[in-house]
Amino acid sequence: MNDGRLSSEALVRDCLEQIRERDSQVKAWTYLDDELAIRSARELDRIPRSGLLHGIPIGVKDVIDTLDQPTEYGSPIYRGHRPVADAGCVAMARAAGAAVLGKTVTTEFASSYPGSTTNPHSSAHTPGGSSSGSAAAVADFMVPLALGTQTGGSVIRPASFCGIVGFKPSFGLVTRTGVKQLADSLDTVGMFARSVADIGVFTAALCGRPEFERIHEAAPARVGVFRMNDWPPCEAPMTEAIENAHQFLSTQRCAIHECALPVPFAALAEAHHDIEYFELARSLQHEYRHHRNELTPGLRTRIGEGLEISGKTYEQGCRLVRECRVLGDCWFTNVDILLTPSAPGEAPLGLATTGKATFNRIWTLLGLPAITLPWHRGPQGLPVGVQLIGRYHEDRRLLACADWIFRGPVPS
Amino acid sequence: MNDGRLSSEALVRDCLEQIRERDSQVKAWTYLDDELAIRSARELDRIPRSGLLHGIPIGVKDVIDTLDQPTEYGSPIYRGHRPVADAGCVAMARAAGAAVLGKTVTTEFASSYPGSTTNPHSSAHTPGGSSSGSAAAVADFMVPLALGTQTGGSVIRPASFCGIVGFKPSFGLVTRTGVKQLADSLDTVGMFARSVADIGVFTAALCGRPEFERIHEAAPARVGVFRMNDWPPCEAPMTEAIENAHQFLSTQRCAIHECALPVPFAALAEAHHDIEYFELARSLQHEYRHHRNELTPGLRTRIGEGLEISGKTYEQGCRLVRECRVLGDCWFTNVDILLTPSAPGEAPLGLATTGKATFNRIWTLLGLPAITLPWHRGPQGLPVGVQLIGRYHEDRRLLACADWIFRGPVPS
Repeated sequence: MNDGRLSSEALVRDCLEQIRERDSQVKAWTYLDDELAIRSARELDRIPRSGLLHGIPIGVKDVIDTLDQPTEYGSPIYRGHRPVADAGCVAMARAAGAAVLGKTVTTEFASSYPGSTTNPHSSAHTPGGSSSGSAAAVADFMVPLALGTQTGGSVIRPASFCGIVGFKPSFGLVTRTGVKQLADSLDTVGMFARSVADIGVFTAALCGRPEFERIHEAAPARVGVFRMNDWPPCEAPMTEAIENAHQFLSTQRCAIHECALPVPFAALAEAHHDIEYFELARSLQHEYRHHRNELTPGLRTRIGEGLEISGKTYEQGCRLVRECRVLGDCWFTNVDILLTPSAPGEAPLGLATTGKATFNRIWTLLGLPAITLPWHRGPQGLPVGVQLIGRYHEDRRLLACADWIFRGPVPS
Repeated sequence: MNDGRLSSEALVRDCLEQIRERDSQVKAWTYLDDELAIRSARELDRIPRSGLLHGIPIGVKDVIDTLDQPTEYGSPIYRGHRPVADAGCVAMARAAGAAVLGKTVTTEFASSYPGSTTNPHSSAHTPGGSSSGSAAAVADFMVPLALGTQTGGSVIRPASFCGIVGFKPSFGLVTRTGVKQLADSLDTVGMFARSVADIGVFTAALCGRPEFERIHEAAPARVGVFRMNDWPPCEAPMTEAIENAHQFLSTQRCAIHECALPVPFAALAEAHHDIEYFELARSLQHEYRHHRNELTPGLRTRIGEGLEISGKTYEQGCRLVRECRVLGDCWFTNVDILLTPSAPGEAPLGLATTGKATFNRIWTLLGLPAITLPWHRGPQGLPVGVQLIGRYHEDRRLLACADWIFRGPVPS
């Protein structure tokens, strides 16, 4: 991305200009220090190219620790908190030469209570969450790359709502050190960009794996389709997007298999709920104990509910997940990727919730890599994405297939 | 444990007295503020009983964040560091009324470089690590309970070397928020006590699961024995301990099955190495980048090695683990628990290393609950423990069997 023709300072100034113009409406940023950003960019312009992201500005979701900028986890409890170290993913990005532009809005502790961000395509609509600011900032050309996290659908959903590429890698691909924990079995560091190629370069830097730098686009030979159009929240614009993607792939000589979820998977949605609530009730114990009145009533209730879930229920959920992870792997003996909805449909109206994670939770729980590609616009003119799922730890193959689909039909 | 007859202040003063007398030799503590400890105890004595650990002093391994006491992760990089919140496990313990007595010595970032602690049974011998201070402090009657972490064998090995009970629960049983990350796929919060019953109460408090409070001792009907006496570092005192435990169980009418590791498990030791190094190289990226000269040469080398491990090797390891987790579960259709060595033998002479984790790594990697019980003394007069392994998330059954074995032969 940085071919040496453009200085980091110029890039950063462009980003800051766009933010100045648009952020009073989009409200994607929770912390931004123009002078610090320009100073960092100048330093990078002075030194030799240090890595894949040299001089590239990135946005960092505010549940991820940064040494030089406050990190508030979307909660007044941590107002002005200055971490003592960069999170692992931030340190990896900086080691590759990235310039941390600022911190982006998150819901409260990456849980449900929304921040101030609006959808760049229509400020009356949610951008999705919990990585609201990162998705909106990339979609609105305020920054080319941003970091997020996903515990339910917090990367894929906002990326779909905002019309960009969102990637939730295999569980554990990107280090989680210094990321505020919500649910340990589920929290996954993910990322936003405006192309699959950029996602590849970003991933290469974040996990220190150069093989991700060059994603050679590759047509998937065999695609499994989970339409899920009988799942309650699936709306017409999403059903159409999946059908349209299906049609496109058929014309490109991909073999399409219609898939249904294996029987044991029916219990995964409930297992996700139990595991998430059980774990967050414990990981947020310090805040629950010392700052209960500074938590939103919704999160307080959620913690209370998590403490009521029996150990037996939690364990059954964990055991089911272990089994389904192995069971789910069987798909990929027949298909290269799965095609499935990214979200129920267009971004819902209003900012009181960030929408439903129904189509994301099971993939997060199984730890499988997922990417959403902007596909078309719905009747309200808002973006609708389609989601591709890959085999555990075959992230590179998923990105290669996604890149090929993202680039669209090859002229014949 | 707290029946109301003893004040917390008296308990804490006893602990402090023992520490004053012995810690110049054992060197188990890295931070201790007598006045803070006594003040906390007095406050607990003034209020009604708040939970299972009301007034009980605990030691906290110094890779675990505490709000009111410095947390240095065994590294000069974090000298005097004051975390902004308690770790989840500390918050859970305090919510149950525990008094945090002080911070115990850890190896550097819970990796290999040893701290100053000596074995309470012989100061020329290692106490084991990385939870060196927690194990030694409990063994030397300085504190009844202590928190540790295990990434390889950092709870079971030091507990065996120091002659106490050490418990590494199922992966994820105790929340890891606020625990300095070394290898995300492996790090597990564990605990030390002088009886299995105490471990049960401690576990109940730490994971907010009252069903752990009363561990009803229960004889295991079927025991699998992994002797592992052909594994290179297994020494005579350990072989004898396993044989002796085997004999004891036979006389108690347990059905004993001799077990061997399934073929795919042979690659797990190498997978553990690859996963641990690959992950720590990324989780310690901030320190590697900004404080390289304050890392020990050994850890610097280890991070460098981790950065050289290919993504493919790492992924193969992760996939093998997923498969072996399901495969390993099959044992427990035939046996209730597995009996296997806790460590190679007695604590080795010298303080330059903390001994080998050969007999612990695969259980950590599989995420299975493990407990070590002090069994006998070796020729040097040092303790030798035996390890019991349970089914994933059947921690309670493991503790019940362990309690029965710990209490010894029932008079017939």
